[in-house]
Amino acid sequence: MAAIVGLDVLDIRFPTSRELDGSDAMNPDPDYSAAYVVLRTDEGPDGYGLAFTIGRGNDVQAAAIRALAPHVVGKPVPEDAAALGALSAELVGDSQLRWLGPEKGVVHMAVGAVVNAAWDLASRRAGQPLWRFLSAMTPEEVVGLVDFRYLSDALTPAEALELLRAGQEGRDERIALLERDGYPAYTTSPGWLGYSDDKLSGLARQAVADGFTMIKLKVGGDLDDDVRRMKLAREVVGADVRIAVDANQRWDVGTAVDWMRELAPYGPYWIEEPTSPDDVLGHQAIARAVAPIKVATGEHVQNRVVFKQLLQAGALDVLQLDACRVAGVNENVAILLLAKKFGVPVCPHAGGVGLCELVRHLSMFDFAVVSGTMDDRVIEWVDHLHDHFLDPAVVRDGRYLAPTRPGFSARLKDETLADFRYPDGPVWTALGTEA
Amino acid sequence: MAAIVGLDVLDIRFPTSRELDGSDAMNPDPDYSAAYVVLRTDEGPDGYGLAFTIGRGNDVQAAAIRALAPHVVGKPVPEDAAALGALSAELVGDSQLRWLGPEKGVVHMAVGAVVNAAWDLASRRAGQPLWRFLSAMTPEEVVGLVDFRYLSDALTPAEALELLRAGQEGRDERIALLERDGYPAYTTSPGWLGYSDDKLSGLARQAVADGFTMIKLKVGGDLDDDVRRMKLAREVVGADVRIAVDANQRWDVGTAVDWMRELAPYGPYWIEEPTSPDDVLGHQAIARAVAPIKVATGEHVQNRVVFKQLLQAGALDVLQLDACRVAGVNENVAILLLAKKFGVPVCPHAGGVGLCELVRHLSMFDFAVVSGTMDDRVIEWVDHLHDHFLDPAVVRDGRYLAPTRPGFSARLKDETLADFRYPDGPVWTALGTEA
Repeated sequence: MAAIVGLDVLDIRFPTSRELDGSDAMNPDPDYSAAYVVLRTDEGPDGYGLAFTIGRGNDVQAAAIRALAPHVVGKPVPEDAAALGALSAELVGDSQLRWLGPEKGVVHMAVGAVVNAAWDLASRRAGQPLWRFLSAMTPEEVVGLVDFRYLSDALTPAEALELLRAGQEGRDERIALLERDGYPAYTTSPGWLGYSDDKLSGLARQAVADGFTMIKLKVGGDLDDDVRRMKLAREVVGADVRIAVDANQRWDVGTAVDWMRELAPYGPYWIEEPTSPDDVLGHQAIARAVAPIKVATGEHVQNRVVFKQLLQAGALDVLQLDACRVAGVNENVAILLLAKKFGVPVCPHAGGVGLCELVRHLSMFDFAVVSGTMDDRVIEWVDHLHDHFLDPAVVRDGRYLAPTRPGFSARLKDETLADFRYPDGPVWTALGTEA
Repeated sequence: MAAIVGLDVLDIRFPTSRELDGSDAMNPDPDYSAAYVVLRTDEGPDGYGLAFTIGRGNDVQAAAIRALAPHVVGKPVPEDAAALGALSAELVGDSQLRWLGPEKGVVHMAVGAVVNAAWDLASRRAGQPLWRFLSAMTPEEVVGLVDFRYLSDALTPAEALELLRAGQEGRDERIALLERDGYPAYTTSPGWLGYSDDKLSGLARQAVADGFTMIKLKVGGDLDDDVRRMKLAREVVGADVRIAVDANQRWDVGTAVDWMRELAPYGPYWIEEPTSPDDVLGHQAIARAVAPIKVATGEHVQNRVVFKQLLQAGALDVLQLDACRVAGVNENVAILLLAKKFGVPVCPHAGGVGLCELVRHLSMFDFAVVSGTMDDRVIEWVDHLHDHFLDPAVVRDGRYLAPTRPGFSARLKDETLADFRYPDGPVWTALGTEA
């Protein structure tokens, strides 16, 4: 029986703040980073996972991942649903580490990185891409992955099982469809707040030419700027391309409502992160006031309990799960099941390091056996940093291609690990480690 | 002008799991710990603060505090309200570190430890205990301490100013009353889940003899055990002593309601942490179902945004602020103002390392200039680990005495720092560092 013999953690940072890629109203100068984890095994492939951060504190995130090592090192490689469910429960359930959340922040993201690395490992060993590996599990196995604690007032294991059994109908056809046509994407590349009007309109025009039917703009810095940029984007893309806007938590409830009233004439499709991701009741108030503009959130939603409430309260119209914010594949399966129960589309967050690579697997699993539909579903696409990955996300004609290589696609290239290691990799020593 | 010249962080752990002090349904074997911070200055006293953890991960917490050093080292000592408000805003606002929360978990507690150390330093320099230092500030100065972001749908700066101006009336009399009579306490010492029935009844009897008018029992492990323990405690303390019960997040919503129905015949005063601290809507449902039993929560409530919603939703009857969970004094001032606005009593959480020492200052500030009342207000008292502090909390006849020494009382004795340093202090090397 194969065993995990080591857990390595690397602090990898990209100096993205120099280009204002990724700049928004709350995050003016991010250095996109990964606390990168390798589960080393005594035979066969290793497993790879990461937590995404934006620079300072990536070392704290790495320390949290290291604190989980005793739960995995020296243990058998988890190969099936039962073992992967047990591992997730053990990591989330460490009662001393749990105190530091509970189930939120640095420690919870660390659990996510390790759980995702274990899924990468298991699906590599099975010789399948994660989404196929997961979609092949029985409804009973999938239910066994999920921690239903705190969910039973919204979703019971029996209800989940029923949803998943219904999802088996037509599964093989949907898998074939994914492998043939991929999954729809939208692009955030035109809309970073630090970009000039010319760069914005050029990239928006390009996005339409590239086949995207939706783009996204960052807002929330200055109202006049936002109105001008929104008007410009609408002129460039025309009436039929959706334009989402993203405030990155910048506003209070009243400000969100007022601001969106000014942008409404230009037809925004959704307003993303209008206020604190913790504010369920605030999102509810905003959603009621800005309808029919949709409210989207999720990249900073800490766990399934907050998603549960957002759904119960009718506070979000679009659920943006994140591959690395919550406790990995297992908790994201719970979130997909909740979204299915409440009939809310899932459009994953993917601006970051490796997030495009990871979330495509989750959306494809969702289509294959949970929601069974792509209606109003799109995966975010941000076109940078992909060439650092061995199995990069590929978008063609506005659609993500289905991944075919075994694993969960989080593995970085060896030369990237050498070059971008912080603070002593050559990219950083050349910059004088001025992060 | 005095300057901060260093930020030291120590990993201090007490092997409390050996005695089952602090054992509850979610935390069976805590080693009470502190990530302890010293702000060293070039002249005059240093400042002391801490984050409370329960063992594993205290090193991760320490790493997060270290990550904040560039914001304080080499800077002037903050001496007044304006400087303390600016420091808090700068620490909370670090856009790269914020990503790791935002405003929750390890990074947020790290901000709390540094902010509290800065308040300790400022009040030491002013020669006053923190609660007197804070109570002497003008309403305008206190409003300036608070980050109102995400609060304005519940509390505006203008409303806060009005509340604080009203609180000035009778302030000096209330301060004199605190210095004469102290502030009411309740005790959790009888009720830890690991204690035998004999130990429970002996300690409950002692608590009444010591002048306490309320005790607390841990529940949530086993229903039959809880009914037996609750019945026993009620027999021992009689009808007039309040008995609170604390489930430490153990239940789902439905379980909480069912379980409390079984305990109701024995007259529990409040049910504390019935479910996930993240579940505003869950607490609302429980509060409606178990009334007139009160619902209490707060020790794991991550920030002011969640407290705001708990109050807006009528989801809690007793607000249990924690000195170290949120971003320190400044955010706790916001929480006290919210509680005042909604008319909910604050009864701080204090089971831990140094929490009794710290929260007494906050409750006394609340009485002096915010709520102006002690009705239904009590501070938790857990009688262990106090002798490690230089200015320990003292409870006499069931009441906390008002602290008189300058500062915020978080300073540990030098011999404690030497003995309990993890993993290399003599207490741990003798135990074989088996944490």
